[in-house]
Amino acid sequence: MQYKAPLRDMKFVMHELLKFEDHYKTIPSYAHTDKETIDSFIEAGASFSEAELSPLNRSGDEEGCRFENGNVYTPKGFKEAYKQYCELGFPSLCADEEFGGQGMPLSLGSAVNEMVGTANWSFSMYPGLSEGAIRTLEHHGTDEQKQKYLLKLVSGEWTGTMCLTEAHAGSDLGIIRSKAEPNEDGSYAITGQKIFISAGEHDMADNIVHIVLARLPGAPAGTKGISLFIVPKFNVNEDGSIGERNTVTCGSIEHKMGIKASATAVLNFDKAKGYLIGPENKGLNCMFTFMNTARIGTAIQGLTAAELAFQGGLSYAKERLAMRALSGAKAPEQAADPIIVHPAVRNMVLTCKAFAEGGRALVYYLSQFSDVVTKGEGETQAYADQMLSFLTPIAKAFLTETGYEAANHGVQVYGGHGYIREWGMEQNVRDTRIACLYEGTTEIQSLDLLGRKVLGSQGKMLANFSKVIYQFCEENKDNDAMGEFIRPLARLNKEWGDLTARIGMQATENPDAVGAAAVDYMYYSGYITLAYLWARMALVAQQALQGDTTETKFYQAKIKTAQFYFAKLLPRTLTYVKRIDTGLEPYMSMEVDEFQF
Amino acid sequence: MQYKAPLRDMKFVMHELLKFEDHYKTIPSYAHTDKETIDSFIEAGASFSEAELSPLNRSGDEEGCRFENGNVYTPKGFKEAYKQYCELGFPSLCADEEFGGQGMPLSLGSAVNEMVGTANWSFSMYPGLSEGAIRTLEHHGTDEQKQKYLLKLVSGEWTGTMCLTEAHAGSDLGIIRSKAEPNEDGSYAITGQKIFISAGEHDMADNIVHIVLARLPGAPAGTKGISLFIVPKFNVNEDGSIGERNTVTCGSIEHKMGIKASATAVLNFDKAKGYLIGPENKGLNCMFTFMNTARIGTAIQGLTAAELAFQGGLSYAKERLAMRALSGAKAPEQAADPIIVHPAVRNMVLTCKAFAEGGRALVYYLSQFSDVVTKGEGETQAYADQMLSFLTPIAKAFLTETGYEAANHGVQVYGGHGYIREWGMEQNVRDTRIACLYEGTTEIQSLDLLGRKVLGSQGKMLANFSKVIYQFCEENKDNDAMGEFIRPLARLNKEWGDLTARIGMQATENPDAVGAAAVDYMYYSGYITLAYLWARMALVAQQALQGDTTETKFYQAKIKTAQFYFAKLLPRTLTYVKRIDTGLEPYMSMEVDEFQF
Repeated sequence: MQYKAPLRDMKFVMHELLKFEDHYKTIPSYAHTDKETIDSFIEAGASFSEAELSPLNRSGDEEGCRFENGNVYTPKGFKEAYKQYCELGFPSLCADEEFGGQGMPLSLGSAVNEMVGTANWSFSMYPGLSEGAIRTLEHHGTDEQKQKYLLKLVSGEWTGTMCLTEAHAGSDLGIIRSKAEPNEDGSYAITGQKIFISAGEHDMADNIVHIVLARLPGAPAGTKGISLFIVPKFNVNEDGSIGERNTVTCGSIEHKMGIKASATAVLNFDKAKGYLIGPENKGLNCMFTFMNTARIGTAIQGLTAAELAFQGGLSYAKERLAMRALSGAKAPEQAADPIIVHPAVRNMVLTCKAFAEGGRALVYYLSQFSDVVTKGEGETQAYADQMLSFLTPIAKAFLTETGYEAANHGVQVYGGHGYIREWGMEQNVRDTRIACLYEGTTEIQSLDLLGRKVLGSQGKMLANFSKVIYQFCEENKDNDAMGEFIRPLARLNKEWGDLTARIGMQATENPDAVGAAAVDYMYYSGYITLAYLWARMALVAQQALQGDTTETKFYQAKIKTAQFYFAKLLPRTLTYVKRIDTGLEPYMSMEVDEFQF
Repeated sequence: MQYKAPLRDMKFVMHELLKFEDHYKTIPSYAHTDKETIDSFIEAGASFSEAELSPLNRSGDEEGCRFENGNVYTPKGFKEAYKQYCELGFPSLCADEEFGGQGMPLSLGSAVNEMVGTANWSFSMYPGLSEGAIRTLEHHGTDEQKQKYLLKLVSGEWTGTMCLTEAHAGSDLGIIRSKAEPNEDGSYAITGQKIFISAGEHDMADNIVHIVLARLPGAPAGTKGISLFIVPKFNVNEDGSIGERNTVTCGSIEHKMGIKASATAVLNFDKAKGYLIGPENKGLNCMFTFMNTARIGTAIQGLTAAELAFQGGLSYAKERLAMRALSGAKAPEQAADPIIVHPAVRNMVLTCKAFAEGGRALVYYLSQFSDVVTKGEGETQAYADQMLSFLTPIAKAFLTETGYEAANHGVQVYGGHGYIREWGMEQNVRDTRIACLYEGTTEIQSLDLLGRKVLGSQGKMLANFSKVIYQFCEENKDNDAMGEFIRPLARLNKEWGDLTARIGMQATENPDAVGAAAVDYMYYSGYITLAYLWARMALVAQQALQGDTTETKFYQAKIKTAQFYFAKLLPRTLTYVKRIDTGLEPYMSMEVDEFQF
């Protein structure tokens, strides 16, 4: 299916809801990013994504990547599209101006990434991984390393990877085995095997800069003995030119459910030359910079899935004729009514819409805190850091899971046709399934949210956000038109604190109670977070309708989608509360050897 | 992954829960089917499924079917496996003895189908579709038609199809366009295109008997003008030998998300010779026999997905090491604990187990009513027919949706590895996705349940089943050990009636309210139905533990799974009730042209 960038909705979120221009004015480094600049970037992103990337989405899935003699060939058209992507300057968008970047805010980058990713998620993996390497080098690289690697990554001539996972170690990085032995010249010999390395090998760039986790000799066991290294595919000469091939080779690529045009490599490091980044044994700490970026990037994948399902589902629902509305024919001149007359079909389309637009609001909202963390200072920065830390696992887990749900609705709207490859709906399901797994599974994100962030801050991080909601409710409590949103939101906001306290009590009896509650708590938190954003969007729409607008339909649709969200999606919180309150025992009572078949 | 037939659990359901032997004694035609006979059949099914079909599951997915010059070639090994399947007598298991069948009850057939399908769903599609053709011919064929076609279908030498769908008409069969024009010899010339025809063309049998829906000249518009025809791939001579090729040809096969070893054909009928089955214009009524069988068959697919996810997920959860339990190391001698120590992993594994074993109980329970409908008589038969009509859409929609959920948990337990093809977990997701679409989507089943069955019978069908639950609760109300199950079950059973009445009220205002409530009502009904069966299973297990048993672990696990079901899955009903009570308006308020992107 042909993707159409939802520019009107993106602008609604950026300009009307979150007031990007005003926000940028509060951060000196971004003060120059005015509305015109924003719009010109997203319009450039839209036309490139629609014209160049969307048409390669299905062909890329059909063809996949090809592995031959250690080389990986990307599908037809990918190399050319990547070249154009670089020529248009997208790799450098948010990079530091000092090293060839355009110094744009990450929030603007998120909007561009959304379009690139919705048009072709597999494609977006290549620059997406580079972005992780760029952020890591910006934060932790020496000047020499930046000079040597960062410039070429920023220009897009080279791409990057993040090499964390080993076959036996995914979520649990503390048990990785790859080792780094010091060479006489100050470099390290890296040995080990890494798997699931996205963009680990391909034919789109001249060199690949691998960022690798490995252990130094005698390093402490566990997560505190892991260091971070740069391992280029080709060594780089003093003058910056490409030197001899390093001893890191691609052993194979994975055969996956989806994102088939994204090469997922097994990389074998055989005394490959590597360079330490950041302090010894602090590799995992250095990785957190990257991980947060990557988690927001993955949250975006959830949003892309919901958007694609919404676009595909809506088009089909308006065209496909089947049966009559139970309340009587709505298109009597045709053999049957378009299926959008059926409430069950509307339920699916509206669910996609609510998750796509709500997810967009959440990602952009979150990205504003990224901006402040990156270039703000003092207390504002510290506050933004807390908000970002709190909202990131929610966005990652909640938006990928709801995006996957939406992708499945997209298939369902098409009936049997949804199962056929040509419509693109089943590809959306396959491509999106990975989002709930990589960059920390839903379960890991949930533990991070409840264990590390909420309980780990003695509730402070929750209190911060809860206060934002409280203030919004207070400000609008006398607005009758907002009552249908404010009342349930205020009630849930209070319940959130009570529920957290109850989990805290459970956890004092048995720490496993945190693990038992975490996933339900994440969903619960996600539904409230989106409720807050939907209420805000409804308010903006109400205000616009009170003014002088020609876009009545657009704003009416916003309010009605908010109403749908509150009536039909928010009640899911009831189940999560009940599940949390039934506690740990129903999970743990079964002995391991009682599990059988 | 290698499938292992869960014989212990199957026998638990057949012998201990549902007392198949006693049940068969009440139906004269099946009175000879004793425990030994049952066990010998399911053990034969188990060894064939494990040894022959399971190993072809992944290779069949990888290779898929090949289309060449109108012919379809099934993947390596399928032809041989099908030959063996026939030699073992499986196609004839439940067919009438008069036409070469073994006259076994459908409930026993369901158990065998479960194993065949869990081992290799794509394979099971071929005999599955034959079964539909067999049932249709048994019920509606003339003696001559039975002689000519049924014998060969029952032996498995030929296979069958059901040709309903056209490109523009899936759920809405009233608008099909294929036509049947009378020939001089009493046959008909069938012209039109059918799509999504499972087993529509392949290389495993000498002939294919298509059962085709088409319109006679001057037939009334809509569903009341559709007739049913037999259209053989090869015409059959008077002596039963294969004659000349009929003018039905395979135009292509679909490229699908999954069940890739099952050929899904586009069939072009170009004045193909066909023979009317059943009365003119009553084709859809005749099809209902087949559709009910097919819906139970599809409900089984849901169960197979949950079982496969349970088996795969459990094995991996016991083996894979990652992180420590939050309550302290459980396997301190290893680098990390097996992930089954984590409550979130247990949640997924237990959810699969609860849906697989609960789904098995539902399918076998339902199949007992099939037995009575097929060979019972009088009031007992009429009652069974009502119960079957009521439970079939629940089983089809609820088990396929929960099976799909379970399949996704199977992937999730494996983390990133679940996304890789070699583990088989993602194939389970892809293969199962179709189950929520074909044989009537979840939405269509839900409308059938709420609109036709529950409201259409003025609540009588619901009352029948609700009475069964009520009696069970009454019988066990003084059993303290059952209190944790009986109390919530009795409460929900009452709520079910109240909720139905509220929907009835909504519907008097606007008939679309039925469509708005239907899917939620189906889920709600499914959770109560499984709760009833889980409570019964807990009771059987309690009784067994009070007696003299060496299988303490097995029965303990049953009770604990029932507790898990009541604590963690049944609370989902809270959300469905709330969604139903928020009514129609949130779906319908949006104008069609307000839906945009």
